[in-house]
Amino acid sequence: MSAEFHFGGDYNPEQWMDHPDILEEDIRHFHRMGINTVTLNVFSWAFLEPEEGRYDFSFLSFVIKRMGEEGISVILATPSGARPKWLAAKYPEVLRVTDDRRRMLFGERHNHCYTSPVYREKVRLLNERLSEEFGHAENVIAWHISNEYGGECHCPLCQDAFRNWLRKRYGSIEELNRRWNNAFWSHICRSFDDIESPSPIGEHKNPSLALDWKRFVTYQTVDFMSEEIKAVRKYSELPVTTNMMYDYDGLDYSRFADSLDFISWDNYPSWGTGFGGDGVLVAADNAIEHDYFRSLKNKPFFLMESCPAATNWQPYSHLKRPGVLEAASLEAVAHGSDSVLFFQMRNSYAGYEKFHGALIDNSGRCTRVMKEAEELGKKLRMISRVKGSIVHAEAAVINDRESRWAMEGAAGPRNAGLHFRDNLRRIYLGLRSCGIDVDVIDSEHPFDGYKLLVVPMLYMFRSGAEQRLREFAADGGTLVVTHWSGVADECDAVYPGLSPHGLADVLGLYRTEIDALADGKTNTAVPAAGNKLGMKRSYECSVLAEVAELTSASPVLVYGDDFYKGYPAAAVNSYGSGRAYYIASMLEEGFYADFFASIIAGCGIEPVVSGLPRGVFASRRTDGEKNFVFMQNFSASEVILDSSVASGCRIIAGSPERLPSYGTLVFEK
Amino acid sequence: MSAEFHFGGDYNPEQWMDHPDILEEDIRHFHRMGINTVTLNVFSWAFLEPEEGRYDFSFLSFVIKRMGEEGISVILATPSGARPKWLAAKYPEVLRVTDDRRRMLFGERHNHCYTSPVYREKVRLLNERLSEEFGHAENVIAWHISNEYGGECHCPLCQDAFRNWLRKRYGSIEELNRRWNNAFWSHICRSFDDIESPSPIGEHKNPSLALDWKRFVTYQTVDFMSEEIKAVRKYSELPVTTNMMYDYDGLDYSRFADSLDFISWDNYPSWGTGFGGDGVLVAADNAIEHDYFRSLKNKPFFLMESCPAATNWQPYSHLKRPGVLEAASLEAVAHGSDSVLFFQMRNSYAGYEKFHGALIDNSGRCTRVMKEAEELGKKLRMISRVKGSIVHAEAAVINDRESRWAMEGAAGPRNAGLHFRDNLRRIYLGLRSCGIDVDVIDSEHPFDGYKLLVVPMLYMFRSGAEQRLREFAADGGTLVVTHWSGVADECDAVYPGLSPHGLADVLGLYRTEIDALADGKTNTAVPAAGNKLGMKRSYECSVLAEVAELTSASPVLVYGDDFYKGYPAAAVNSYGSGRAYYIASMLEEGFYADFFASIIAGCGIEPVVSGLPRGVFASRRTDGEKNFVFMQNFSASEVILDSSVASGCRIIAGSPERLPSYGTLVFEK
Amino acid sequence: MSAEFHFGGDYNPEQWMDHPDILEEDIRHFHRMGINTVTLNVFSWAFLEPEEGRYDFSFLSFVIKRMGEEGISVILATPSGARPKWLAAKYPEVLRVTDDRRRMLFGERHNHCYTSPVYREKVRLLNERLSEEFGHAENVIAWHISNEYGGECHCPLCQDAFRNWLRKRYGSIEELNRRWNNAFWSHICRSFDDIESPSPIGEHKNPSLALDWKRFVTYQTVDFMSEEIKAVRKYSELPVTTNMMYDYDGLDYSRFADSLDFISWDNYPSWGTGFGGDGVLVAADNAIEHDYFRSLKNKPFFLMESCPAATNWQPYSHLKRPGVLEAASLEAVAHGSDSVLFFQMRNSYAGYEKFHGALIDNSGRCTRVMKEAEELGKKLRMISRVKGSIVHAEAAVINDRESRWAMEGAAGPRNAGLHFRDNLRRIYLGLRSCGIDVDVIDSEHPFDGYKLLVVPMLYMFRSGAEQRLREFAADGGTLVVTHWSGVADECDAVYPGLSPHGLADVLGLYRTEIDALADGKTNTAVPAAGNKLGMKRSYECSVLAEVAELTSASPVLVYGDDFYKGYPAAAVNSYGSGRAYYIASMLEEGFYADFFASIIAGCGIEPVVSGLPRGVFASRRTDGEKNFVFMQNFSASEVILDSSVASGCRIIAGSPERLPSYGTLVFEK
Repeated sequence: MSAEFHFGGDYNPEQWMDHPDILEEDIRHFHRMGINTVTLNVFSWAFLEPEEGRYDFSFLSFVIKRMGEEGISVILATPSGARPKWLAAKYPEVLRVTDDRRRMLFGERHNHCYTSPVYREKVRLLNERLSEEFGHAENVIAWHISNEYGGECHCPLCQDAFRNWLRKRYGSIEELNRRWNNAFWSHICRSFDDIESPSPIGEHKNPSLALDWKRFVTYQTVDFMSEEIKAVRKYSELPVTTNMMYDYDGLDYSRFADSLDFISWDNYPSWGTGFGGDGVLVAADNAIEHDYFRSLKNKPFFLMESCPAATNWQPYSHLKRPGVLEAASLEAVAHGSDSVLFFQMRNSYAGYEKFHGALIDNSGRCTRVMKEAEELGKKLRMISRVKGSIVHAEAAVINDRESRWAMEGAAGPRNAGLHFRDNLRRIYLGLRSCGIDVDVIDSEHPFDGYKLLVVPMLYMFRSGAEQRLREFAADGGTLVVTHWSGVADECDAVYPGLSPHGLADVLGLYRTEIDALADGKTNTAVPAAGNKLGMKRSYECSVLAEVAELTSASPVLVYGDDFYKGYPAAAVNSYGSGRAYYIASMLEEGFYADFFASIIAGCGIEPVVSGLPRGVFASRRTDGEKNFVFMQNFSASEVILDSSVASGCRIIAGSPERLPSYGTLVFEK
Repeated sequence: MSAEFHFGGDYNPEQWMDHPDILEEDIRHFHRMGINTVTLNVFSWAFLEPEEGRYDFSFLSFVIKRMGEEGISVILATPSGARPKWLAAKYPEVLRVTDDRRRMLFGERHNHCYTSPVYREKVRLLNERLSEEFGHAENVIAWHISNEYGGECHCPLCQDAFRNWLRKRYGSIEELNRRWNNAFWSHICRSFDDIESPSPIGEHKNPSLALDWKRFVTYQTVDFMSEEIKAVRKYSELPVTTNMMYDYDGLDYSRFADSLDFISWDNYPSWGTGFGGDGVLVAADNAIEHDYFRSLKNKPFFLMESCPAATNWQPYSHLKRPGVLEAASLEAVAHGSDSVLFFQMRNSYAGYEKFHGALIDNSGRCTRVMKEAEELGKKLRMISRVKGSIVHAEAAVINDRESRWAMEGAAGPRNAGLHFRDNLRRIYLGLRSCGIDVDVIDSEHPFDGYKLLVVPMLYMFRSGAEQRLREFAADGGTLVVTHWSGVADECDAVYPGLSPHGLADVLGLYRTEIDALADGKTNTAVPAAGNKLGMKRSYECSVLAEVAELTSASPVLVYGDDFYKGYPAAAVNSYGSGRAYYIASMLEEGFYADFFASIIAGCGIEPVVSGLPRGVFASRRTDGEKNFVFMQNFSASEVILDSSVASGCRIIAGSPERLPSYGTLVFEK
Repeated sequence: MSAEFHFGGDYNPEQWMDHPDILEEDIRHFHRMGINTVTLNVFSWAFLEPEEGRYDFSFLSFVIKRMGEEGISVILATPSGARPKWLAAKYPEVLRVTDDRRRMLFGERHNHCYTSPVYREKVRLLNERLSEEFGHAENVIAWHISNEYGGECHCPLCQDAFRNWLRKRYGSIEELNRRWNNAFWSHICRSFDDIESPSPIGEHKNPSLALDWKRFVTYQTVDFMSEEIKAVRKYSELPVTTNMMYDYDGLDYSRFADSLDFISWDNYPSWGTGFGGDGVLVAADNAIEHDYFRSLKNKPFFLMESCPAATNWQPYSHLKRPGVLEAASLEAVAHGSDSVLFFQMRNSYAGYEKFHGALIDNSGRCTRVMKEAEELGKKLRMISRVKGSIVHAEAAVINDRESRWAMEGAAGPRNAGLHFRDNLRRIYLGLRSCGIDVDVIDSEHPFDGYKLLVVPMLYMFRSGAEQRLREFAADGGTLVVTHWSGVADECDAVYPGLSPHGLADVLGLYRTEIDALADGKTNTAVPAAGNKLGMKRSYECSVLAEVAELTSASPVLVYGDDFYKGYPAAAVNSYGSGRAYYIASMLEEGFYADFFASIIAGCGIEPVVSGLPRGVFASRRTDGEKNFVFMQNFSASEVILDSSVASGCRIIAGSPERLPSYGTLVFEK
C-alpha cells in the first residue's frame, strides 16, 4: 500500500455510464482534493452479471484502469451486498424470511439469506471471476468483502443450520434443556428439531434461545464471509477487509477479526445534534468505537466510510460546522486509522441516498465541503509519516457484545434502560481525561500487557473470564469492576453462589441486591470517612444501584440516601499483587475523572499528556522508534496549552501553544 | 384448611430434579420463614406427560409427599397454562390464531386455543389422572385451575363457536342487525355465517361486534375452565380456584365466580415507582382490587401471587423498601385475604423470569427478603384468629367490566383517555378517607344491604340496572352517579330519550352535552350559593365535563368557567325515601374526601375509624362475633393515633399509639 | 339549483326503517332549522341490492319523495363507499391487499380494490339503475359520487395495472431505470414485470417508485370515479361531485377537478384544541383548504360535510363553543362555498359514529346545537344573494401535492419534520393579514391573472414549472420563492447545475447548502443594512436554514448566527418587468405579515380591507356586478372596526361597528 494515508471513498460511477464527462469531471475534482483511493463495485452486480451466468466487467475494468492512469488506488468490493433482481426472481430462496415467518420481496439492500446454497454459489462464481480479472491489477490494493453485513433470516434453511449449530454446541438435547432451563414453563424439547428461531408469533421470551440465535447469526455471517474471502483469494493475494458498523448490535464483530487482514468500519456520528449537541460526548463516543475496532487486531484499521457533509438518514441533516470534517477525520487517524474515506465521492442523482452528503454534489460546483476536503488532504500529507504506526495502550475497558446481548435481552432489572453505553462513555471519558490511551476489548481478548483493566457491567462471564480476571489482579494488575457484573454464564443462566461470580474474594465483597432507580431519580455517593483514595466530593448515582456486603474491601464512597445508605458505592480491595476496585452504580461523569486520576499513578501508567481539560484528548501512535502524539480539542472554546506539552518535540501539524475548538496538534515525541 | 393464614407460594422444583440437595435446602429455608403452603405443578405438563398418553407423576408425587412430611400444604395446579411442545407439534389446532389471522408457533405460555377439542381432551385426561392420583392426598388443600387465563384465539374453531354463541344470544340475524345497527355503513349480515371476529385487517370499527366478541372470549374461557373443573372433580372434592389478574381487561371475572369455590388473584403493584411514587395511591389501587375480588363471592379470598422483592417485567425492578413487604401483605389480609402467597419460592436459574424476585435466590444465602419474610410469617401467626372472617361493607362502588369494554371501546368523547380508573381511585380514596369499608362490585351484583352506592361512569346499563338503581334510591339508599352514566344499552346502542337512561327523575336532571377537556386544561367547580351540603371550597375539574339541565335537583357545585359556567358540577335530589347525588366531571382528589365526609352520616353508616389523615386506611373483618380492625399507614410519615381509636380494645399486633410509615395496627373491637 | 344556500347534510334514515315516526320527527326538526337539502344513499347498498342482482329501491324512493313533499332537495350518493357483505364473500377480489401483501377481510368501509373488474361492474350496474330511477327526480339536484375516496390496494390486479401505467409513462424499461437511477443499489429492472408496488417487506426505499405509485393510485381512483360518473350519466344530466378530505395525502385532488362539475369537501377542524387552542390558526388552516378546493375549478364549491357539534374520532370531542358553528360555516361561504352541510342530520343509535355530533341527537330533544343551527339557517337566508358569486384573487400560493409527496418521501434533509404545512400557514396568514384574497393552487394551475405568486418549498419542478415561473416574473409579476425549492424533477431526480433549478438568475442567487436545525434550535434573521424593504425587526428562523450565494440579488435579512452569519435569510432581485423575492428559512409568523405588508402595494393589489389585526380575516365574493365582503374575527376579543371599513356600503349581516369574537360582518360594496 501507499506511503500516504488513503484518502477518498466510495465511488459508484455506474450511475453515469452514459455521461463519460461526469467521470472526467470527478477525476479533476479528485486531483484538486488530493484523493488517492476509491472504493469501487459495492453496488455493481446488476452490471457485472446482467443475466445469470453472463458476465460483463468492461465498465469496471475501464474505471479501474482510468483510476490507475490517474494514480488513484482502488479498494475493490465484492458486490454481494445488493443482488440483482433476476436472482431473487429465479431463486426465491435467496430472499430473507422475517422473524414472523414471512418471505420478503425483492427490494432494499440487506435482504438475502446467508445460508442459501444458491446465493452462496452465485456469489462464489462472481467473486472468483473478479479475483481472476482484477486480483493483480496494479492499482487495486485490497478486497472490500460485501458491504455492512447485517440482519438475519428465519427461512427453513436457516432453521436447519441453526439446529445443526446447536447440535454441535450442546451435543445432546438434554444438555440444552438443562442449560436453558427449559423445565421452566414446561418447554422441554425432545430433539433439536423442536427448536425454532425466536419469533414474535412464537417463542420470544426464552433468553437462552435468543442469545444462541444471535450467536448463530454471527456464526453464519462469518461463514458466508469466509466463503466470499475464499473465492477472492482463488487468484489474488490482496488483503481483505469488510466494513463494519457503529456499535452494531446484530453481530459480534470480535468473531470476524481472524478472517480479515485488516479491520475497517463506517462512522456516522451526529455532530451538532447528538448527545444534546455536546461535541465532547460525540468525540468520546467515536473514540470508543475507533479503539474497539483497532483493538480487534491491534494494528492500523481503515475508516472505510464517513460523511463529508450531513447524512440523509438521521433525524436532522445538520451540516458539519467548519473544522468538524478535519477534526473528525484526524480523530480516526489519532486512534489508529490509516485512511480517511467517505461515502461517497459524488452524490447519486436519484434514489434513497441522493441527499447523503458527498464530496462532489449534483451541481458539480466547488463547494465548501470540497474546499475543506482539499485542506484535509493537505493535512493528511503533512502527517503521512504517521501511517502504519500503531497504538500501544496500557489500559483497557471491556465492551463485550455477547454479554450485552444477554444483559440487554434479559427481563429486569431495568427494562426502561440499563444505559450500558452511557456508563461506558463516562468511564472512557474518565480514562481519557488522564491522558492515556485505552483499548476497548472483548472479554476474550488477552489481558496481558495491560496495567489497568476496567470491567463495566460485564453481566456474562464465559470461557473462564473470572479466572483470567483473578489472575490479572493477582499478578499486579489494577482491576475495576462495576455493578451488574458476573451475573450469568454463557447460556444466560444465573451463577449459584456469591456474586460477582468468582470475584467476591478478589473484590472483597458480594452483591446482595440491585435496585432500579426510575428515570429522574438519583441517590448520592458520598466519600467514606478516611477512604484510601482521598476522595472528597459527592457524586450523583442513577439508573441502577447495587447493594453489596463488604468482606475484606474498604469503602471509598458510600450511598448517602435510602435504606442502603452507608453501603459502598465504591470500594477497594487488595488481592495478590494487585488491586481491585468496585463501583456499585452509574455515577456522574465527573466521578470517573476524579477516580481514575486518583489511581492512575498507582497503576504505573505514564500519561501521553497530563492535566487535560474536558474535551481535550491526547493519543499516541508509535512506529517502534518514533511516537506521534495527537492532541485534539472537541470543546467549544480554544485551549491554551502548557508550554511543557510539546516542548522539545518536532511539531508536525498545528500550533503547540493554542488548540482552537476542533483543532488538532500533531507532534513527534 | 389450616387455622393459620396460608403463607408460601409458587414452587417449581422440576428445575432442580437432578439437584435433590436444593429441594432440601429450600425446605430448611421454608421452616425458617414459617412457610406452610406451596403451589405446585403450574408448569409441569412436560414432566407429567413427557409423550402423548404416557404419564409420569413420580416426581410430583415425591414432592407432595415430601411437603407433607414437613407439614406443608399443597395447592395443586392443573398444568394447562403451559403445554408441552409435542402437543403443539402433533396438533397445530391447539395453537392460537392472532386477530390478523396468523397461526402462532409454539412458544411463550398463553398460546392455546380454548375452543380446540383436542386441547380440551388432552387437558381433561391429564386433569382426571391428577384428580385420581392426588385428589385425596392429605396435604393437598385446593385445586388451582390453570394459570392466569387470558388472551384470545381467532381460529376457525373459535369463529364457529362465536357464531353459535351469537345465534343463541340473538335468535335471528335480523335481531342482531337491528341491535348492532348494521344498517349503518351498509354492514347488514344475511346470516350468522357472515360474522367474523374483529380484526385489524377486517372489521375493527364495529363496537357492538367488539363488545360481543369480548363477552364470547369470557364465555369460552369460563367454559374451558368449567371442563377443567369437572375433570379434577371426577375423583376429588377439594375446593377449586383460579388465579386472576389485576384489572385485567381481557376477561369479565364476574362471570367466573359461580364456577369457583373461592377467589384468588395475583397482585404486582409498582411500589415506589407507580403513580409518581405516591405510595398512598398504590395502596388505594391495590385496595380497590382486593375489594373487587373479595366482593365477587363476599367471602375470604386468596392472595395467590405477589412478589417478595421486585418483579422482572416492570420498567423498573425497584426494590421493595423495608416494611413494604409486610404492609402490602397485610393489606391483602385487611381486605379479606386468607393467604399471603408469592411467586415464587426460589428463583429459576435461567429463563424469562430468572430475575423475578423470589423468597430464595440463586445464591441460597439468607437475604434481606428472607428475613423480612420470616418477620411477616411471625406477624401472620400473631393474627391468625382473623383467618376466615369476612368483611361487611355498607358502601359499594360499581366497577363493571362490560361497561368499561363498551365505554373504552367507543370512539368519543375523549379518545385521548377517559381516565376511568383514576376517577374510580379518587372516589375510592374519598370513601376510604371516611373510615368505611367498601365493596367494589359489578353492576349485576345485588344492591341490597348497601346504604351508599356509588356509580362512577357507568356507561352501560344492562339487565334492568336503571330499575334496580331506582329502587335502591326509592328504598332509602344514597345513590351517587357521575358523568357519562346511563348512555348505552348492553349492545352499546345509545338509549333514546333523556339521559342518564331511566334516572333523570331520580337525579332530578338530564345530560345535554359532554365536553372533553384537553390534557392540561381544567374547569373549576365552585360552591353553589347556599348548597345543601355546605360545601365551601372550589375544586378543579378535568378530562370530561358534562353539562346537565336541572329539573328537580339542587346544585351543590357549579362550573366556574366557560360557556357552561353556572351549570351544575354536583347536585343533589331527593327521590323516594333516598337521596341521589350527581357529579358532572372528574374532580380533584380532595373533593371526594370532602363530599363523602359531608354525606356519610346521612347515609347511616358508622365508620370503622373516623378522622383519618391521607394515607391511613382502616378496615374491618368480622367472624360474626368479633371484629378485627386493621389500620395501615401508607403515607411517608409516622402518624400519632388518637387515644380513642383502640381504647378498650384488645391489641393483636402493632402499637395503638403511633402508626409508623408502612406500619400496621390490628386490634379486636 | 335553489337560490338559497344549501343547508342540511348527510341523512341515513335506513337505520330507522322500522320507526317511520323518527323520519317524521326529523322532518319537523328540519323545518324548524330551515334545512333545505339532504344527502342520501351514502351507505345504502345493502338495502338497494340485498342480494346479487336483486334491486330494491322502494325505501330510497319513498324518502326522496317524502323530502320532495317537504320542499327538501336531495344530493344523491352512489353507494360504492361501503359495499355489502355478500359482494366480498362471493368475490374476494374486491377486497384490498395491504402493502405487506395480505388480503383483507370484509369490514370497515374503505376496503375495496378500485381495479377489480367485478367491483367496477357491480358498481356500474347499480349506478345505472340509480341514474335511471332517480336521475330526473324533481328534488334530486346532484350526484355525490361514492364517499371520501381513499386508500390503496396492492393486489395482483393492481400490480398489473401499475405496470401498464408505468409502461405508458416511460415507454421503455431502460428509460425508467435511468430516470429512477436504478443503477444505484444494483436495482436495474429487466422489464416492467420486475416492478412491484412499494412494500415494507420489499422495496420501501426507492423514492421514485414510491412517487409513481402514489401517482398511479390517484390515476386509478380517478379512473374508477370516471366509470362511476359515466354510469350515473347514462340517464341523467345532473351535476356530479365527490366529497374530498382535508389535506389528504393519499390522493392528488388536482387530478380530479376535470371529471367533476363542482368541487365539494368535508371539513373537520379541531376548534378549541387544535394548534394549542389558537382559533386564529384553526381558522387560517381551514381557509387554506377552502381556497385550495375553490381554486381547483375557480367557482363555487360545496362544504359537503362538517360537524355541527364535536366529532367522535379526534383525541378530544371538544364541544364547539357558542358562535363557532356559525363562524365556521360562514367562513366556508366567505371563501366560496354555496352550501353549509353537515355530517350528520341525526345521530346513529349504534356503531362507530354514534357519538359523532349531529343536528338531531338520540334524545330527539331540542338541543343547543339545534338552536344554533336554526340561527345559522336564518343568517344563510339573510345573505342568500351571495350564492353563486365567485372569488377573484390576485395573489396565489402554491401547495402542490406531487411535490409534497416527493419532498416528504425523501430521506433528508430533516426526517424529524420539514413543517411544510406550518410554513404554508404562516405565509398564508401573512398574505391574509394584508386583507387580500388568495388562491391556493397546484403548480400546474395557470399563473396568469395573478400579480403575486408565492412558491413555498416547491421541491419538485415539473411540466416546465421553472419556465412558467420565469415568465411570470419577467412579465411583471411578483414572485416569492422559499427554501428547498427547485430541487428535483418529476421523477425525484436532483437537477444538475445551479439551484433552485432554472431560477438562479431570476432570484439572483443559488443555494449552496441546507442546514437542519434540531427541534428547539433557532437562528435569527436580522435586517440587512439599508435593505430595500426597509425591514427593521429581527425574526426567529427554525427547522431549515438554506445557505445561498447572492449573484445579483440584494439581501433583505441576513442570518445573525452560526457559520452562515451574514448570508441572506431573505433577498430581492429584479427580473424582467417583475421582482423576485427569496426567503431562505422558516421564519416566525410575524415576519410574513411584515414582509407582505411591505411589498403588497408594489404588487399592484388592492386589499379588500386593510389594516387588519391578527385573527380578523376579510374576503370578497363577486357576481360580476356586486361585491360581497365578509369580515370575520377569529381572535378571542371583540374588535372595533374603523368607520371607513363599510362606510356607504349596504350591510347584509352583522354590525359595521364592532366585530365580536367569532362574529361575522357581511356587506355589499
